[in-house]
Amino acid sequence: MRSDLYAVILAGGGGSRFWPASRRAKPKQFLSLSGDLPLLATTRARLQALVPDERVLVVAGQSQADLVRQTLPDLPPENLLLEPAGRNTLPAVALAAAEVARRDPAALQAVLPADHVISPEGEYLASVEAGANLAAQGRLVTFGIEPTFPATGYGYIERGSPLGTFGDYEAFEVDAFHEKPDLDRATEYLATGRFLWNSGMFLWSTQAISAALERHAAKTWELLRDARGPDLAQAYDRVESLPVDVGVLEQASERAVIPVAYSWSDVGTWRALSEVAPHVKGNVLTGGGSLWAIDARDNVVWAEKGSLTALIGVKDLVVVRSGNAVLVCPRSRSEEVKELVTELPEEWL
Amino acid sequence: MRSDLYAVILAGGGGSRFWPASRRAKPKQFLSLSGDLPLLATTRARLQALVPDERVLVVAGQSQADLVRQTLPDLPPENLLLEPAGRNTLPAVALAAAEVARRDPAALQAVLPADHVISPEGEYLASVEAGANLAAQGRLVTFGIEPTFPATGYGYIERGSPLGTFGDYEAFEVDAFHEKPDLDRATEYLATGRFLWNSGMFLWSTQAISAALERHAAKTWELLRDARGPDLAQAYDRVESLPVDVGVLEQASERAVIPVAYSWSDVGTWRALSEVAPHVKGNVLTGGGSLWAIDARDNVVWAEKGSLTALIGVKDLVVVRSGNAVLVCPRSRSEEVKELVTELPEEWL
Repeated sequence: MRSDLYAVILAGGGGSRFWPASRRAKPKQFLSLSGDLPLLATTRARLQALVPDERVLVVAGQSQADLVRQTLPDLPPENLLLEPAGRNTLPAVALAAAEVARRDPAALQAVLPADHVISPEGEYLASVEAGANLAAQGRLVTFGIEPTFPATGYGYIERGSPLGTFGDYEAFEVDAFHEKPDLDRATEYLATGRFLWNSGMFLWSTQAISAALERHAAKTWELLRDARGPDLAQAYDRVESLPVDVGVLEQASERAVIPVAYSWSDVGTWRALSEVAPHVKGNVLTGGGSLWAIDARDNVVWAEKGSLTALIGVKDLVVVRSGNAVLVCPRSRSEEVKELVTELPEEWL
Repeated sequence: MRSDLYAVILAGGGGSRFWPASRRAKPKQFLSLSGDLPLLATTRARLQALVPDERVLVVAGQSQADLVRQTLPDLPPENLLLEPAGRNTLPAVALAAAEVARRDPAALQAVLPADHVISPEGEYLASVEAGANLAAQGRLVTFGIEPTFPATGYGYIERGSPLGTFGDYEAFEVDAFHEKPDLDRATEYLATGRFLWNSGMFLWSTQAISAALERHAAKTWELLRDARGPDLAQAYDRVESLPVDVGVLEQASERAVIPVAYSWSDVGTWRALSEVAPHVKGNVLTGGGSLWAIDARDNVVWAEKGSLTALIGVKDLVVVRSGNAVLVCPRSRSEEVKELVTELPEEWL
C-alpha cells in the first residue's frame, strides 16, 4: 500500500466494437472479456496491493451507476463520481482531480481506463511505483507501451531526453504526442525505437494536475472544480469535450513518459481477444458459456452464460451470441462491427 | 373434396439434423422450415382442398401429443393416434389402417410424412387424385419423384411396365425398391431414366393395405388391428420396427408407382433449406427472426423469433440460433450435425 496514492478509474464511455456482447446500456468495461471478472473489476483488482478501496475513485456516466456498484460492491458510495454526460477524458480527469484535491491535496493520482488488459501484474505495479516517484517530483507522467508491431489503432508518444531511473524504469521527456498513424508511418515509428503506444494511463500529483488544468483547460477546470448536483449538469453542458492528452498534456511542459514493456491491450476489437482471453481447444472462449468444436480452430467465441456454441469445420471466425443477437464475421473483419452498429435499428443496440 | 379419401399424416419420429432448432422434444415436423407454418401444418394444409378435418388422421408419439394439438388446432381429438414408442413407419401405417377400417372400410388412405416440402400444390393435388383412382383399383400406390441429380440421400423406386394413364399421370409397375446408393450407382440410376426417388408417400385402399399387412406383416397387423390403451403399449413392445416399404411393399405384387415431377424435398439437412426456404438479400432466412447482412451471401440462417443474426463478410455458412444454442458450420458440412448431436451432452439435446 502507498498512503499517498489515489486510483482514478475512468469507467464512462460507450463503444460498440464488442456488439452484441456490449450494448449501449452495458459497454465493454462491464464485460468479462479477459477472464472471469469484468474489465472494470480487473482494473480495480490490479491495484489492490497498492490502493485501498477508500482511495479508489470511479468516474462513470449517470446511467452506469448501478452497473458500477454491481461490478465493484466494495467501492464506497461517495467514491463513485457520476458524469451527467459523456465528454471524453478531460472533464472526467478534472472532476476526479477536484475531488482528490478536497480530500487530500498532497495525494498522487493514478488515472486508468477501466477497459484495458495488462499482464503480468507484478511488472505493472512496479511501473506504477516508478511513476508515483516521478510524479512526486511534479511531473505529469504518461506510460508508453514499447510497440511490438506497427499498430495503426493507437496514438503514439515520442520520447525525448532521459530523465533518470526510477526503480527498474527509465523516464524520458515527451517530445510529442502523435495521432493514430497510417501503416507506413507506424512502420517508421517502430523503426526509430523512440515511439511508444499511448496507453491512456497517467500518474500525477494533485497539485501538478490542478495547476496544469488551470493553465491549459481553464474554462473546464473553473466549471468543474467546485460543481456538485444540478450545477454539475449545467457545467457539463459547457465543458470542453477533449481527451486529456490533447487538452492538457500536449501543452504541458512538465510531462514525462515511462516506457513499459508488459503486455498491454485496449482490446479494441473481437480479434484482439485472441491475445488476452482464455483459449479452449484452439479457440478463444469468453462470455461464460460453453463451446463444442469439431474440426474448428482459431475462432473467437463469446457464448453467454447458459448457452452452447457448436462449431463444425470453421476457422478464424468471430461468433458471438449475447442477449437477442448473434454475430458471425471473419476475425480479419471484426473492425467492421463498429460500422455495423451505426446501421442497426435502435432495438438491437 | 373426395368423400372416399382419408389422409394419414405420419408425424412421429425424432431426427437431429436440424439441431439446435430441432430438439428431442421438438423435432423437425414442428418447425417452420419452409415458410410461416410448421411442416406438419403445411402438410395438412396441402390437402385442404381434398380432405376435410374429420378424415385427417395424425400418427405421432405420445410425448408429441401437445405439439400436434397446438400445430393442428382443428384436428378432431379422436383423429390423433398416439404411438407408445417409435417403431418406424410400418406400425404407424398399420395403426392408421386399422382405425380407418373401423370408420370406413371402403375408404382410400393417402399416407404422408409430416416433414416434406412440396410445390406447386396444384400438381401435387392432381397426383393424389391420380393415385386415388389407381388405388381404387386395388393397387398399393407409391409416388416416385423424377430425380434431378444423382442423389445419394434417397432410396429409389425402379419402375417397370406401364399400367395406363390417370389424369395427367402415367402409372407403372414397380420392378424394385433400392436403398440409398453411392454416387456412382446414383449416377447410373439417373442415366437409365427408370429410377425415381422414393418419396415415402403412399396411397391405397383400406382393403388393399389391410390385406397386404395381413400377408406380409402378419404379426404386426395381428398385434395392432384391435389394440387400444394399455394393450397398445404391450403391442408396441412386440411389433416389427421397419419402414412400410421394406415390411410390406417390397413383398407386395399389387404395388404401383406414379412418377411425379413437382419440386419435392424431405429437407434432410440445413443445406437443403436453400431450395425450400425464403431468401432475404441472397441468404436463406428462417425461424421468424431477423437478419442483417453486410457483404454476406448464400448463408443459411435460422434466427429464432425476436432475435437478430448479423453477418459480416461470410459466405456459404449455416448459422442457427435457437433456444440455448448456436450452430455455425459450412453449408457443405451440414450433414455432420447429425454426428455432432450424438456427441453432445444431454443438456443440449
